[in-house]
Amino acid sequence: MPERITSVQNPRIKAAAKLRQRRAREQQGRTIIDGVREIDRALAKGFPLLELFLCDEMLVGAEADALRNRVDSQRDLNVYEITRDVCEKLSFGERAEGAVAVANYPDTALDASVLSASPLIVVLEGVEKPGNLGAILRTADAVGADCMIAADARTDLFNPNAIRASLGTIFAVPTFEATTAETFAFLRAAGVQMFAARVEGAVSYEQVSFAGPTALILGSEAEGLSGRWLADDVTNIRLPMRGIADSLNVSTTAAVLLYEADRQRQH
Amino acid sequence: MPERITSVQNPRIKAAAKLRQRRAREQQGRTIIDGVREIDRALAKGFPLLELFLCDEMLVGAEADALRNRVDSQRDLNVYEITRDVCEKLSFGERAEGAVAVANYPDTALDASVLSASPLIVVLEGVEKPGNLGAILRTADAVGADCMIAADARTDLFNPNAIRASLGTIFAVPTFEATTAETFAFLRAAGVQMFAARVEGAVSYEQVSFAGPTALILGSEAEGLSGRWLADDVTNIRLPMRGIADSLNVSTTAAVLLYEADRQRQH
Repeated sequence: MPERITSVQNPRIKAAAKLRQRRAREQQGRTIIDGVREIDRALAKGFPLLELFLCDEMLVGAEADALRNRVDSQRDLNVYEITRDVCEKLSFGERAEGAVAVANYPDTALDASVLSASPLIVVLEGVEKPGNLGAILRTADAVGADCMIAADARTDLFNPNAIRASLGTIFAVPTFEATTAETFAFLRAAGVQMFAARVEGAVSYEQVSFAGPTALILGSEAEGLSGRWLADDVTNIRLPMRGIADSLNVSTTAAVLLYEADRQRQH
Repeated sequence: MPERITSVQNPRIKAAAKLRQRRAREQQGRTIIDGVREIDRALAKGFPLLELFLCDEMLVGAEADALRNRVDSQRDLNVYEITRDVCEKLSFGERAEGAVAVANYPDTALDASVLSASPLIVVLEGVEKPGNLGAILRTADAVGADCMIAADARTDLFNPNAIRASLGTIFAVPTFEATTAETFAFLRAAGVQMFAARVEGAVSYEQVSFAGPTALILGSEAEGLSGRWLADDVTNIRLPMRGIADSLNVSTTAAVLLYEADRQRQH
């Protein structure tokens, strides 16, 4: 039987709740994961959880049942049954679903060993909003991209909001963090063709070939891409803009480019 | 010289601030528009503003200058200069940019007269989140879609959050509101081919032709599409999902489909 925690003053609960703050995540080297689907996907991908807190009375529905079954099949998980009060303390303003987990902050160093023979890589420079990061991870997962690289990120990748916005796909897509200079060197060494999405890009995205080893490079909505990407071996591409506005959300641009790459690679 | 308002108790300010609430928008038949770019786009598209509130000290930068110039060129605008306090009261927790406007709630009834000879229409059923509505309008504007129809919407279309999320493109794309039954009849009468995006769609989206008169029909993320769209003349399409997740955000799906339609129509 799992240990039962009924007090919001329990030290394990207090330590976990602190992980809502970036500083605590950095100090403890851990992060916190919310949500039935997100935790189920972490387990499905073998992402190691240090602690799993479940609130029985809140866990209803097919997805909760699926999570319960997966948890039951894993022997060495540290599972704690918690009360609704404790769950709400742990969830701290997030929509509480009855499942919260703690995990070591994973290694996010660039790793070329994940790359396939003809990789599809998405690079996001200067990302600030966990929602954008999560949305792009969902699309990267959907098209089977080899990895996502956050270059010069302004948020920590495995923060609870990014995990949530990714719906747990962050556990399925190798997700790396590096400086822009390191990322550029990594892409060159990997021999991928680099395409930078810019509003003023010279070539429309559907005029180029993403069939070979490809990196799609996107900037933050506020700042755009840095000068580092103005190199001879980087092709500047744009999406047609036929209306009144001059730019799209970065996750929209990423989705159009990733699916166009997928479409070309299937034909 | 424009009238100057310095008191947050000014009745005009109080009436405008109330428009943050849906009930007040319905009672007054008006809505409130935030943001320099959004208001500039409303004016650019000839969207009639009843009142325009500008806070001089907050209006800095190129976009603010562009708005000022456009305002100066329009003679019959009711412009009020406001203080920072008044602007913050009007903005009510939104990021205050120094420009807020009040407008009559526009006519959102279905209108076939906006349709081109070979229209591209996007239909969103059961939309709840202004953010999704706004994001889809940005893409619809970018590809020059003929109109956006919100079928059985669960939010009012011209609510301030949707206007904001659309970055003002809601003033550029004809935006209609109707029941699902009315929308279906409208599309049939318009002679457009209907494509419903479903996770379990029989045909992959890039296998069909969007070159003719086309309606792309999307459901809300929570509920999907209603049974009304299971008709013989509706083609169910899907996006490939090669990863761990089984669905994409609705605005992501819309972007991929709208840009694929655009791509096909240019070739």
